[in-house]
Amino acid sequence: MSTSTRPDLSAGAQCPLPRSDDAQVLLAHGGGGRMSQRLIDEVFVAAFRNPHLEALHDGARLDLESGRVAFSTDTFVIGPLFFPGGDIGSLAVHGTVNDVAMCGARPVALSAGFILEEGLPMDTLKRVVASMAEAARAAGVPIVTGDTKVVDRGKGDGVFINTTGIGLVAEGIQVAPSRAQAGDCILLSGGIAEHGIAIMSVREGLEFETTLESDSAALHDMVAAMLDAGGDGVHVLRDPTRGGVASAVNEIAREARLGARLREVALPLREEVRGACEILGLDPLYVANEGKCLAIVDRQVAEAVLEAMQNHPRGGEAAIIGEMVDDHNGKVLLDSRIGGSRIVEMISGEQLPRIC
Amino acid sequence: MSTSTRPDLSAGAQCPLPRSDDAQVLLAHGGGGRMSQRLIDEVFVAAFRNPHLEALHDGARLDLESGRVAFSTDTFVIGPLFFPGGDIGSLAVHGTVNDVAMCGARPVALSAGFILEEGLPMDTLKRVVASMAEAARAAGVPIVTGDTKVVDRGKGDGVFINTTGIGLVAEGIQVAPSRAQAGDCILLSGGIAEHGIAIMSVREGLEFETTLESDSAALHDMVAAMLDAGGDGVHVLRDPTRGGVASAVNEIAREARLGARLREVALPLREEVRGACEILGLDPLYVANEGKCLAIVDRQVAEAVLEAMQNHPRGGEAAIIGEMVDDHNGKVLLDSRIGGSRIVEMISGEQLPRIC
Repeated sequence: MSTSTRPDLSAGAQCPLPRSDDAQVLLAHGGGGRMSQRLIDEVFVAAFRNPHLEALHDGARLDLESGRVAFSTDTFVIGPLFFPGGDIGSLAVHGTVNDVAMCGARPVALSAGFILEEGLPMDTLKRVVASMAEAARAAGVPIVTGDTKVVDRGKGDGVFINTTGIGLVAEGIQVAPSRAQAGDCILLSGGIAEHGIAIMSVREGLEFETTLESDSAALHDMVAAMLDAGGDGVHVLRDPTRGGVASAVNEIAREARLGARLREVALPLREEVRGACEILGLDPLYVANEGKCLAIVDRQVAEAVLEAMQNHPRGGEAAIIGEMVDDHNGKVLLDSRIGGSRIVEMISGEQLPRIC
Repeated sequence: MSTSTRPDLSAGAQCPLPRSDDAQVLLAHGGGGRMSQRLIDEVFVAAFRNPHLEALHDGARLDLESGRVAFSTDTFVIGPLFFPGGDIGSLAVHGTVNDVAMCGARPVALSAGFILEEGLPMDTLKRVVASMAEAARAAGVPIVTGDTKVVDRGKGDGVFINTTGIGLVAEGIQVAPSRAQAGDCILLSGGIAEHGIAIMSVREGLEFETTLESDSAALHDMVAAMLDAGGDGVHVLRDPTRGGVASAVNEIAREARLGARLREVALPLREEVRGACEILGLDPLYVANEGKCLAIVDRQVAEAVLEAMQNHPRGGEAAIIGEMVDDHNGKVLLDSRIGGSRIVEMISGEQLPRIC
């Protein structure tokens, strides 16, 4: 082993050393010049390949067959970048695909805006981008336009990603919080708190017998099946992300000027997730989900919509977890396992920072 | 003046002290709970007020009368946040309105995604948001959906903003770099380098006799007039932002597999901007613009398009600055003021970091 302070170049004599400007992200990669272009060509276009993106215009042009368009944006600042069940790239695709789907729309295209911190290893970026590309391919929703900025060290945190999506709303579909009615059933597609607990386990260095994985997934196919089954009877759709099921139902109750009653015994919650929540001192009702759909549907179609959820690979544990009620305006009540009932407050601040 | 370490509350006896969680942005403002909701209601919805945003859905639904949709995204990380002629808020609106317009589209809606750094003074955020709202109102393009994340101190830099826009492309309009043809005229709507120089002057603490202001402006009205005048003869539109006119023309030449010849004497450049470029050692051809439009148009319609530009308040100095040529494939030549000609290279890296 050499003790010289000069680098040992012998190993590099046969294969070229990596160029320093390719091993990590530099401010110059954000300058709009050749280095930006190489980053775009070799990292982004190579991964997201589609005719819209290859046109390399500053925007994409899409031919949509209908005029009712849903439009939603979400920014992802999650730490760590990689976690059991996903990473910031797949999450950024799933999150916005789901937001568009929750408008009752079929997602048709995504944009991606990156903020990279100078010094980010290029390999890390490539892994994130490859995961985004794979998630977009699997969902059948192409990333058609994008933008990249680089900020100096200490002014960012590796990678932040904004994705914005557009989708088409079919005739006859009207999904909005204000459509919730007293007597409507509240449906949930599966076990709660799985995303938040997966992230917290990594952050806290906790090890469980089973690896707790994020539920991060695209739900637009399940939503399409639910709309097929329930049509206009599907009144509200929501993915209970930050703030969990408690915050989502509270928001809907507030907007609909109704109350909501949830039955604790009906809430899908995996045993190991319940255990982890107890260890971490978290109420699973407030913990983020990234692959669950909450639906408020007319009682007449509730069974049909539930069946559509249960027939989907991501909805096997779907359940009717409660109902909207006329009294308790804007409030959410939980009928507990042991008989009593309590108000489920809107969370005030931050339970788990940077969870998405 | 009290030397006590306890705060002097006497002044607050009659008017309530500001709540500590309202004076600056906290991580809890990003948690999806009551504090997030208050931030959204009191800062964002209050400023951007429109029926889409007030629905407080996770996305907006728009009824578009046509099916050809342009879609473009841009993230703004500019420092400083406030500069002569604008701020990050107005810039974020103008930038994306322009990107959509450069697709040959009429912008109809914007999304806004914020990344706030913990500790950001709430007043700073409100100033940025008020400026965004005013820019959106002035442009007639509403911000219809949004998202806010908060990152810990030292993991961001005050405010980053992503805006994504959608627009409608009229029948018969086809704007794309690949449509540039040999013989086409290259038009530019006004003086170059004004945005970049305004930012650099602030950063470097330079003072000039006149304040050098950013040209940040929405150009969609001018583009609409240009398309009215030139129709299908308008082949390419581009706003020469990062990397300046040199990079934009290089990109178009590369994509069109043509050469481009620019005439230095025809390039609009204000005398004080030229002077500032000399002091700062910058070539104005590479300095960012945020309110200028570059157009490649059929020679037959060049005069009509030029007139449309000149008749617009933002296009008084518009000029024909060169032409596309058959030879010099992918290269840009500048015929200089003193008779020779030189190749205008694509910039390699970063001339001015975080200029937009």
